[in-house]
Amino acid sequence: MDKIKRNERLGAMTRILMDTPNRIHTLSEFCELFGAAKSTISEDIDLVSASFERFDLGRIETVAGAAGGVRYRAILSPKKVRTILNDVSRRLSEPGRMLPGGFLYTSDISAESIIAQQMGEILAAQYYDRQPHFVLTMETKGIPIALMTARMLDVPLVIARRDSRAYEGSAVKINYIAGGGSERIETMALARRAVQPGQRALIIDDFMKGGGTLQGMVDLMKEFLAEVVGVGVMISTAKPEAKRVEGARSLLILEGFDADTGKAIVHPAQEFEE
Amino acid sequence: MDKIKRNERLGAMTRILMDTPNRIHTLSEFCELFGAAKSTISEDIDLVSASFERFDLGRIETVAGAAGGVRYRAILSPKKVRTILNDVSRRLSEPGRMLPGGFLYTSDISAESIIAQQMGEILAAQYYDRQPHFVLTMETKGIPIALMTARMLDVPLVIARRDSRAYEGSAVKINYIAGGGSERIETMALARRAVQPGQRALIIDDFMKGGGTLQGMVDLMKEFLAEVVGVGVMISTAKPEAKRVEGARSLLILEGFDADTGKAIVHPAQEFEE
Repeated sequence: MDKIKRNERLGAMTRILMDTPNRIHTLSEFCELFGAAKSTISEDIDLVSASFERFDLGRIETVAGAAGGVRYRAILSPKKVRTILNDVSRRLSEPGRMLPGGFLYTSDISAESIIAQQMGEILAAQYYDRQPHFVLTMETKGIPIALMTARMLDVPLVIARRDSRAYEGSAVKINYIAGGGSERIETMALARRAVQPGQRALIIDDFMKGGGTLQGMVDLMKEFLAEVVGVGVMISTAKPEAKRVEGARSLLILEGFDADTGKAIVHPAQEFEE
Repeated sequence: MDKIKRNERLGAMTRILMDTPNRIHTLSEFCELFGAAKSTISEDIDLVSASFERFDLGRIETVAGAAGGVRYRAILSPKKVRTILNDVSRRLSEPGRMLPGGFLYTSDISAESIIAQQMGEILAAQYYDRQPHFVLTMETKGIPIALMTARMLDVPLVIARRDSRAYEGSAVKINYIAGGGSERIETMALARRAVQPGQRALIIDDFMKGGGTLQGMVDLMKEFLAEVVGVGVMISTAKPEAKRVEGARSLLILEGFDADTGKAIVHPAQEFEE
């Protein structure tokens, strides 16, 4: 094999690190792949790292210790996070998104892969230190965002269902109070084999109104003896102010609808504003 | 601003291209970002492109013409595709995945973001030339793979539901025959605003047995006057051989279960084998 030059290594190395966000790659892996010395690979990493920082593209981090190496984390600057959340707020405030019953049509936006990924990046960045073992969501609309959050954290996604399914095997099924004002009792089911006792769960969903579904997921995790280390959502309604679930963090706030235009009033949550 | 060196540009450029697979970035975008001449940026692209090719990391392609530029496509070599599909086959053949009723437990694997992404890469690679406007799937298990396919194609994901929901607005609802042998009639609903007449749909799901759900999605697209340009699934059962839907392509084949061990017999579809 020809000697591989730095110019050839940098793109390939970036590709490999970005393909598996939050996963630690050893320097030896790159030494072997490129036939280069550790000191050379270290310099490569410093170059990529500096360039990511300069252009606000997330972080290439060196992790010390026996299990050490290098990893990519999609941690963006507060300014870039604000820009992304303002853009999404603007799109959610487009005319025609108010539905009968005062619902906001969000399905097209949350299922756009770029937006799902950006939301996943911002949500994951808040929970790296909690080291969840998996991301839990409830079908259906929250799945794209939850999957991208799981991808950024390099952990599996676990999907709770409205009902147990033959192709998921034996399941744990609970009742929970959904729907804010209407106090409907609904069921939620999860395959027994999906979660192990003692695991740490990060709960992610696209939308929170009363918080009943999220609290249902918290209760479900109790049944599995799993620990909930965070609850994150893309959009939360300003009202009701008191949510059934405690400590949920939201990226965006839906204040309500403009009575004249029918446009939604959406803005980034306070912690993301200037 | 300091002059930005090639070593700094290569990582950043790779990051930007990989963040938006299949999206064309103009050379001017990079010229502006890096304060460099077009000829310099062209050389950068050639370097990254050569390195991706050398290490089988997908393609960096230059697109000529007025709307031209450069894009990243996750097209892998047949050898790498085989390796990925063999790995997934092996995992699906682990003991304990056979469920009562002869079902295969796949939910954990299809919701793993790395696997969903790899499946999305392989599926998307087969349909670039059909230029779909969106990817359609039916809730729930197929969503991770469909989302990643949509991401690779840079198109939105559209999710059909089992029932219409207040937060999706007015919907088109159809009946379809599900469940292979049992001939159950089920319903499928999709928000009216989700698809425009004349759009090209790529239908993606995780599992095909009788093909009834996929044919339901084909019928649903007829209601929207949309054109189906492809039907792709991750796993298809070998039996029944005749599927309700025509022309579906599958990455993996489930032959059945070993009577003694209960292990699933799964292998890559013929077109991916050596």
